[in-house]
Amino acid sequence: MKHLKNTWYVAAWDYEVGRHLMMREILDRPILLYREENGRAVALSDICPHRYAPLHKGRLCGDRVECPYHGLQFDANGQCVHNPHPHGNGPIPRNARVRSYPVIEQYGAIWVWMGEKEPDPNALPDYHFISDTDNYRTIRGVFDIENHYEMVNDNALDLTHVTFTHAGTLGAGLDNVRNERVVRERIGNTLWCKRFNDGIEAGSDFQRFNPALVGIKVDKQQNVRWDPPGYIVIIIRYVQADTEDTHYTSIFAGNLLTPISETRTRMFWSVSRTFGLQIEALDHAMRASAELALMVQDKTMIEDQLRLMGTTDLESMRPVYIADDATPVAARRLLKELIEAEEREEREQRAAGSATRRAEPEATPERVT
Amino acid sequence: MKHLKNTWYVAAWDYEVGRHLMMREILDRPILLYREENGRAVALSDICPHRYAPLHKGRLCGDRVECPYHGLQFDANGQCVHNPHPHGNGPIPRNARVRSYPVIEQYGAIWVWMGEKEPDPNALPDYHFISDTDNYRTIRGVFDIENHYEMVNDNALDLTHVTFTHAGTLGAGLDNVRNERVVRERIGNTLWCKRFNDGIEAGSDFQRFNPALVGIKVDKQQNVRWDPPGYIVIIIRYVQADTEDTHYTSIFAGNLLTPISETRTRMFWSVSRTFGLQIEALDHAMRASAELALMVQDKTMIEDQLRLMGTTDLESMRPVYIADDATPVAARRLLKELIEAEEREEREQRAAGSATRRAEPEATPERVT
Amino acid sequence: MKHLKNTWYVAAWDYEVGRHLMMREILDRPILLYREENGRAVALSDICPHRYAPLHKGRLCGDRVECPYHGLQFDANGQCVHNPHPHGNGPIPRNARVRSYPVIEQYGAIWVWMGEKEPDPNALPDYHFISDTDNYRTIRGVFDIENHYEMVNDNALDLTHVTFTHAGTLGAGLDNVRNERVVRERIGNTLWCKRFNDGIEAGSDFQRFNPALVGIKVDKQQNVRWDPPGYIVIIIRYVQADTEDTHYTSIFAGNLLTPISETRTRMFWSVSRTFGLQIEALDHAMRASAELALMVQDKTMIEDQLRLMGTTDLESMRPVYIADDATPVAARRLLKELIEAEEREEREQRAAGSATRRAEPEATPERVT
Ligand code: FES
Ligand code: FES
Ligand code: FES
Repeated sequence: MKHLKNTWYVAAWDYEVGRHLMMREILDRPILLYREENGRAVALSDICPHRYAPLHKGRLCGDRVECPYHGLQFDANGQCVHNPHPHGNGPIPRNARVRSYPVIEQYGAIWVWMGEKEPDPNALPDYHFISDTDNYRTIRGVFDIENHYEMVNDNALDLTHVTFTHAGTLGAGLDNVRNERVVRERIGNTLWCKRFNDGIEAGSDFQRFNPALVGIKVDKQQNVRWDPPGYIVIIIRYVQADTEDTHYTSIFAGNLLTPISETRTRMFWSVSRTFGLQIEALDHAMRASAELALMVQDKTMIEDQLRLMGTTDLESMRPVYIADDATPVAARRLLKELIEAEEREEREQRAAGSATRRAEPEATPERVT
Repeated sequence: MKHLKNTWYVAAWDYEVGRHLMMREILDRPILLYREENGRAVALSDICPHRYAPLHKGRLCGDRVECPYHGLQFDANGQCVHNPHPHGNGPIPRNARVRSYPVIEQYGAIWVWMGEKEPDPNALPDYHFISDTDNYRTIRGVFDIENHYEMVNDNALDLTHVTFTHAGTLGAGLDNVRNERVVRERIGNTLWCKRFNDGIEAGSDFQRFNPALVGIKVDKQQNVRWDPPGYIVIIIRYVQADTEDTHYTSIFAGNLLTPISETRTRMFWSVSRTFGLQIEALDHAMRASAELALMVQDKTMIEDQLRLMGTTDLESMRPVYIADDATPVAARRLLKELIEAEEREEREQRAAGSATRRAEPEATPERVT
Repeated sequence: MKHLKNTWYVAAWDYEVGRHLMMREILDRPILLYREENGRAVALSDICPHRYAPLHKGRLCGDRVECPYHGLQFDANGQCVHNPHPHGNGPIPRNARVRSYPVIEQYGAIWVWMGEKEPDPNALPDYHFISDTDNYRTIRGVFDIENHYEMVNDNALDLTHVTFTHAGTLGAGLDNVRNERVVRERIGNTLWCKRFNDGIEAGSDFQRFNPALVGIKVDKQQNVRWDPPGYIVIIIRYVQADTEDTHYTSIFAGNLLTPISETRTRMFWSVSRTFGLQIEALDHAMRASAELALMVQDKTMIEDQLRLMGTTDLESMRPVYIADDATPVAARRLLKELIEAEEREEREQRAAGSATRRAEPEATPERVT
């Protein structure tokens, strides 16, 4: 599986990780997650180096993990610090350690750095609205999709699908887009695709969520922001037509994609709103809407694609292109460049014999299925 | 998968196809089926050339298919005739078309031509009894078997299995076959295996279906006809012994095999009878009998064979042969010749650089499982 | 799959085989089992050489097996002795035979010899306690584990896992092992690992099974015996501390492993006790305890290992070793030597052109999944 390695991936939402052991797979590796007694989140390889037992089925003893098979204990750095054999207190075997992954907790998520290079704490994409509870109210969830995450990128980066795949729910009908204006931008490695519709009616879901939009004409923006490798924000913004901010109504929908394997993606999704901040019932209405669109309509479509393409390499299939493919294709090509640059750098470092941050090799077994 | 390509395959029974979109897999390809407003059946590739969405999950708009992902529309020839982007009416992308397959509707079935050569409308095997409602009454069904269709051919072409596999249902016991006479014929590419038993009792199922056969001696014929690649008719015929046509009682059982993949076959089955044409209850009795024999007894046996053989190439296994293997083996060898001839012809045409009927290559993805 | 071939494998417990046809897979081959009228157990290849039907779905006719597809009959030596076609009594096809496997019935089990060399009736590992009903009372069972049998060997040969994997059931806590003494022995190809704990309390399960152990200090032994390729006995023995045999209480737990495939093992397990020989209720209590430990706790752990290792070749993974790995590792290396010796001998015999015991090749199909 070709993936960007020296980058942050979301392993879990903050509320999922606590004083218990849990496992999440990222880039084909099982990652053990828990919190230390001081609350700090920890990410270790889930594979015991003795006999390949799954550590997350063991016990949390203070800040240590005890293997469920023969009881070796590992600290939060992955170092084996206790061997009960023989006589309750044996020697620590040389090399008895599991890989520890750098962790940042920010924007409501536990981010894990999967590469060998020094982690860059400033490299997180901006999802401040998830954790800014003064100005936004956010709902969140997580689910899996059976396809490569680039196919999920494609889905979000080309919103023309909304009219068809989400007809009757999010879709506002073809009339709505007759005079649509599209603006595409690249700022560093960030891509934007912005859609403007002036003087239309708000989508029916939005009229339901915010009654201030009923019966008026609105100017609408749908701005999609993408950061590599799979970080999407869809910003939908309504104001009363021909005003700057009357009845300003906005949501920031996050799609944070973590590659589990070549053909499986975990989507961490969020919907942050700027209105109805005190209305709990809106949480439920918006969750139902998001789950139908993401977990039924989009998921089914993206999984059907895998079955019909038979590969995850779209460009090798020589598909037909239409105008709105511009942003998805730009994202694919940028991502390809970044991965190739990373591979080139790795090769050069190996050639130069230079040391990487971690000396010990990690058990990275092939999968048996 | 080695298959005869320039031939007609049954995609569906006529009653299955209508003013809705459906999909059937033939030779590893997903085929979209529907009827135009004028009733004509259409077969297209089910894969949208834009992003590989399954067209059968879209909408039928008049005689056009609208893709469920971004709304491209294709006519009944497979040509893209509408692109809603941008502004509801964008340019038609060059090469935006899906393969269209020649279709014939005859004998109650929708037949699709899978090869590149000109389709031959006279090449259908004869199943007139299915659609001749004046002289026959027919029941039909469809189900899948997990094995290569040649193993299903074998089953039907060697009726000696009836005594054992269908003991207690269709089987009439060993006594019945003591004086059996077998005649094998080849007429063009059609093979016949005919079995004659004179002066016996009718099988118990037949006595139940047609009480005229109770208590008399009969002369019985069981004639199997095979046309390549997987078209079988089993004609069972009883008359009162030593007469030409007293109490003439006959069924024509069709087994029409469509290869779905190397290890999966779709069987379209029919049972046409010459007696009790007004008796609806007989439909149910005969359906129960056919479904038990085909969908339980034969299916289980043929699927067990795949598990035990571990390949679909029977002859490479060097099996033990008995006398009744003559017809199945003749069918396998004839089929092999036909496929090799087709491959030779393709190679020669490619070498000569000659154009085939369809210029555009088709997306034929490998399967991801 | 690399396996020791010239050895006895358990195909079934004696009570499983009778006057019916059953199938068990050993070393990737389906084996047909039944008893002749005189009670003798028979093991044949389950694959009919005519069309690869599963013989165990046929009928037992006296001591013969009738194929469920076209009715060929085979005797208990695997020779085809009847062909009903044509006319109820056709010629026997040349080479119509299935492989017959040597069988011994001993220690309550049906043992089958899988290799080409002459079977050695003296090569059975000693499980006399299973069939010695004067001195022992035995419960037995059988279940499958999804991993290579060497991983199951590892589990039983390193009892340090009991404290962790069986915490709360068989495990007696770390205190119990503080002063444990371990003795390892090799006698021919038999390995022993013996653990001694003096002056401790009996495990809670044992106090429950034998109330004589309640409230006294005991000297405990846990002796594990291993014979290649996968024959384990765990002997647990308690006597009142500082005596030779007061309240002598002992169980002999057999784990008899039969390789089904590279990643699947059948475990025949037994628990023979020396106490409470008349108490039927103890059978149920001990069965519940054994099934929880073996079929839930150990099975889950061993199957997780396959998923995380991604291979069945542990040593190639370069695992971390601890002191208690000595016996499992010794067993792996001894087994490797035996398999390599067998392969060498085969190569030499082939080079010398010498005849093996069985001249006819056997159908050994690859598996289709
Ligand atoms: S597998 Fe973890 S301690 Fe043995
Ligand atoms: S996939 Fe069919 S229109 Fe995009
Ligand atoms: S498959 Fe056994 S007799 Fe034909």
